[in-house]
Amino acid sequence: MNIRHLEPADFDVISPVIDQWWGGRPVRGMLPRLFFEHFQPTSFALDKDKELAGFLVGFRSQSIPAVGYVHFIGVHPGARGRGYGRLLYQHFFAVAAGLGCTKTRAITSPVNESSIRFHLRLGFQLLPGSGDVNGYPVCLDHAGPGQHRVLFSKQLDDGR
Amino acid sequence: MNIRHLEPADFDVISPVIDQWWGGRPVRGMLPRLFFEHFQPTSFALDKDKELAGFLVGFRSQSIPAVGYVHFIGVHPGARGRGYGRLLYQHFFAVAAGLGCTKTRAITSPVNESSIRFHLRLGFQLLPGSGDVNGYPVCLDHAGPGQHRVLFSKQLDDGR
Repeated sequence: MNIRHLEPADFDVISPVIDQWWGGRPVRGMLPRLFFEHFQPTSFALDKDKELAGFLVGFRSQSIPAVGYVHFIGVHPGARGRGYGRLLYQHFFAVAAGLGCTKTRAITSPVNESSIRFHLRLGFQLLPGSGDVNGYPVCLDHAGPGQHRVLFSKQLDDGR
Repeated sequence: MNIRHLEPADFDVISPVIDQWWGGRPVRGMLPRLFFEHFQPTSFALDKDKELAGFLVGFRSQSIPAVGYVHFIGVHPGARGRGYGRLLYQHFFAVAAGLGCTKTRAITSPVNESSIRFHLRLGFQLLPGSGDVNGYPVCLDHAGPGQHRVLFSKQLDDGR
């Protein structure tokens, strides 16, 4: 098992399978090749037996350089339950902190309960929202009309 | 007429109209709110009579810091032919050069002839591709199967 920086060529491996990894949700368009080309310092692949088993795409905010933002994290459906997502996030936390980030942010859909629980287990906190869905605070219409999102934040300078 | 940094609130103005600005092509999903939140230093709005008439979303590559990448540039259909796109690009060139970038990159679809001509007029060069469409070099399958793209590059240190 090996964590390495994501490469542009990984786009051709990940893009065709990502909707399937997301349970059939059409998310492919949200991860264009530019994320594999221009944010390599904070984007990672986890290989198991030389096959890609998970990935994380993140960047350092250029508006708020103290913030490391995670845009996508995914694990192969056949490789879940092994802690790979946690390993990818921990790797990101360390690299982002090394760059000078003091917090990490991420967002998810309120229907994605497993993602919400995963982020809470990792020590993320829910940011206050403008409404709530399923008992979670959400930023209403964050991604467009009716597209509410749960916002997470985690401090990196408090003993991770 | 005023050029200012893009704000997160501009997402709520731009996102609902962007497909219409792109002639009906469904591009909205390619411009999530994160671009308005995290890349403000290199992203701009052009206001005319206090109404948004154009915008440019760009960032500095974190893999290749010499590269400023322009992800989206759009002008209101009723405000075209006035040089607003050129003004937005020139503003980006100056800011990116000030940050230390020596080149700008952008991509477009080979069906978007007006975008190709616009970039060539601005001094962009076509990068060599792996195929060609309509006489233009394209990187085959750049955005997915059958989604070929024209790649542009422009030096910023040659007397812009």
